[in-house]
Order: sequence, then C-alpha cells, then structure tokens
Amino acid sequence: MTLNSIQAIPLKRSIMNLILLDLADIDADGYAWVRDPRRVRHLHEVHGVASGDELTLGILGGAIGRGRLISLGEHEACFEVIRLELSPPAPLPVHLVLALPRPRMLARSLEHVTALGVKHITLLHTRRVEKSYWQSPELAPGRIRDHLWLGLEQARDTVLPEVTLERRFKPFVEDRLPELLQGRRGLFAHPGMPSACPRGIGDDTLLLVGPEGGFIPYEVERLLDAGCQGVHLGERILRVETAVTALLARLF
Amino acid sequence: MTLNSIQAIPLKRSIMNLILLDLADIDADGYAWVRDPRRVRHLHEVHGVASGDELTLGILGGAIGRGRLISLGEHEACFEVIRLELSPPAPLPVHLVLALPRPRMLARSLEHVTALGVKHITLLHTRRVEKSYWQSPELAPGRIRDHLWLGLEQARDTVLPEVTLERRFKPFVEDRLPELLQGRRGLFAHPGMPSACPRGIGDDTLLLVGPEGGFIPYEVERLLDAGCQGVHLGERILRVETAVTALLARLF
Repeated sequence: MTLNSIQAIPLKRSIMNLILLDLADIDADGYAWVRDPRRVRHLHEVHGVASGDELTLGILGGAIGRGRLISLGEHEACFEVIRLELSPPAPLPVHLVLALPRPRMLARSLEHVTALGVKHITLLHTRRVEKSYWQSPELAPGRIRDHLWLGLEQARDTVLPEVTLERRFKPFVEDRLPELLQGRRGLFAHPGMPSACPRGIGDDTLLLVGPEGGFIPYEVERLLDAGCQGVHLGERILRVETAVTALLARLF
Repeated sequence: MTLNSIQAIPLKRSIMNLILLDLADIDADGYAWVRDPRRVRHLHEVHGVASGDELTLGILGGAIGRGRLISLGEHEACFEVIRLELSPPAPLPVHLVLALPRPRMLARSLEHVTALGVKHITLLHTRRVEKSYWQSPELAPGRIRDHLWLGLEQARDTVLPEVTLERRFKPFVEDRLPELLQGRRGLFAHPGMPSACPRGIGDDTLLLVGPEGGFIPYEVERLLDAGCQGVHLGERILRVETAVTALLARLF
C-alpha cells in the first residue's frame, strides 16, 4: 500500500485528535514505533496524513505534545517525538458504577465516559442485567482497554480509567460500597425518585446507573440504606449510554 | 415462527418502553394492527411478551396509554387499545442545528436527541462536513423517520421531530438564521470559546453544533455576526453524539 493509494480509502474517521503511545513504543533515540494494526489503520484513514506532518501525541499516563511522522508503512508508523509539554485534561471527580449494559452499549458507553474524563468505572451485576452479558467477549481486558484507548484518543487524554467487575450485587453493596462512599457523595439515577439530578456540583461523587429496566425495588432500598440519594433525569426513559453522558454533563 | 420458538431468539432489546402507533394503524373498532417488519420484530425480541399482556402504547402526535396484545404472528401484531390518557413528555425548548455527521454517527445522534426531547433539527453543511455524507442512504426520509421513531419509543414520546436539510452554509446563515433567532437565544458549541456552556437555562434556544474538526474561522465569524454566542464544554474534544447529549443535558 502506498501513500497515494491511501487517499482512495473511504474515510471512517477523518480526524485524529491524539495518537496515544505506550512508553514501550518509544526507543532510546526518542522515536516512537506504532505497530498495532488498529492504530496503523487509523493513521491510514486520516485524510492526507503524510511523512513530515506534525501530529499530536500523548504518552500513556503522561504528557501530551507533538511528533513528526517519519514514515507510514502498511504495518508500522514511526514518529519523531518533538516535544511533550502539556498535561492531560483534568479528570471528573467521579467513580461511575454502571449496571453491565448489553455488549454494544457497553462498548460505546466506555468510549463516551472515558472521553468525558471518568477514571474509575465499576461494572455491576443487578437483577435486570441479562446474565449472558457477563459472557461477552467485550469484557475481555484487551477489548475493554481498546474502548478506553479510543475514548482517550478522542478527548486528547492519556490517563487510562481503572475498570472493576462486580458480578454480584449484594457483596458489592455490603462489602465495597461503604468504603467507596467514604469522602464521596453517593447518587443513583432512577426514574421516579423525588429529586432531580443536581447541576454543576464540585463534590467527589459515586454515581450509580441502573440497567435498561432500572434497579429493582430491593436494590433501590439497599442503595438508600447505604446512604446514596436517588435522583431522576425527568420523565423520559433514556438508553444507558445517553443517560450516563447526560448525568455526567449535568453533574460536573 | 411460534411464540415458543421466539424465546430462543437472542435478546437485542429486552425492554419495550412504548409501542408507537400511527392513527392509520387503528381500525374502526379500536384495534391497532402493527404490520411493519421492524416493529413486529421488535415485539418478538421482547422477552416473554405473549397474547393477553398489557403494554404501553402511544399514538403518533397524540396521547399515551395502554393496550392489550391480542395476537402476535410472524408478520403482524394486533392490540386492543384500552385507554389513552397521558400526554407525551414536555419537549426541550431548542432548535438543534447539527453539522451533518458521518452516517452512523447521524443515526445514533438522531436517536439520542429525539429521546432527549428535541423537536426541531436542522442538518447543515459546513466546510468540514465530508461532501459524500450528503449522498448517504441514511438521509432518505424513511431512514431518518426510523431513527426518530426509535428515539420516541425509547423515551415514551409520541411527537416526531421535524428535520430540515440545509446543504449550503452561506444561504442558511444569511437567509434562514436571522428568522430562526427571533425570540431565541443563539448558542454555538466550539472549542476555545471564552464562555463555558451555561447550565439549566429555560430560554428558547437555537443550538449549533459543528462537525468533527469544528467550524472553520469564517463560519465562527458568521455565527458571531448573526448574534450567536460561542460556548465551550471544556478542553476535552468529544464526538458529536457525546457532545450533543452533553450540551442538551447541561443547558436544559
């Protein structure tokens, strides 16, 4: 594949906001080698990228800066790292606990919330989560990491969120939740709660979002008992990915 | 296909919040006949739906109520409309002008914003919109209507948004925008603008959202000249579908 032939590839993503590099991608001379098929394909899909171009780079967990594309081949790309001087954007002060959504919704929700700056994500089993969702290949660590990585590249961030799986509701609520709520405000989104979701709070928050179909009454009671407050987003029923984005945008 | 065999179909959407009916679906005896493949398939995908079940129905542009499933066959379903007594939820006081996103993003964005209660949508050409997007089959009126319909069923709403296509930026800004801004606050989302997006405004608003890559400086100037205010959502770069949901949740 030559650079000329690349121009004819249909554009799937015409924008590349950031190329996120692992420290392991960078050699002793300050050159970064990108060799995984996803990122190389992504570079080829960017309209008109050619050797000599300056692009925005970030180091996983570290700084953001600029790099010059030295070569772009079929299987690898090489950058000269020019400077790394910016910090990644501030994270949101939230630990998000999400009832495990169906696989495609999970993938998109992870990308949305990572782009929005969430750094702590717990995927939780609740009564109305289909048990089969826990068998999904989307839960493999590599797949989760791919979605987080895409969210970071989208938002020009470098700090991977931490994702925890909680396959049982009761042990989570009894054993982990009290600790997670220390120093944090606990909110759970549930239709029909008396309070509307607050706006623009600066507090450290634990935010719980139920599955399609919501929490069951027993779960609502356990969350209230634990000291969480139930909030609603109005009378409309939203998909999980829409609701999570709306909640985060409204709270922070 | 029998009801028993249906139980084995993998669940794609286990929840059906509302079945939206056209007045034309209802016969003189008050029975509603659903015959389009999408809605019939949707009914089959709902776990455990069977004749005799009561479900939530809505009439396009009208009221919401309950209906009893009389029969569910391979190609049609019949409901007895029991009562129609609720009004649809309140719309958002916004006219959304969205630079035409790539087709898959358009589809999802239409579903998100319809579920959130937007009733006026203009899809606009701007410099950084790929011209090929205007050839997409997703722009066929039937396809657009399908996505709006899904958004309404998700949010238990019955009022279809109105969608207008504006294939040229300059005539839109010069000829249509001044009229759209009468009695409305004009806001456009653009990274780097000095003001953060305001929160919880009650005003009638015209909200413009640029394409991936943003408005070009000329477009920003034309929008400012027209009396619109530029607002930002922080330093993170969001995908159009995430940004639109975040903006609407923050504004209203």
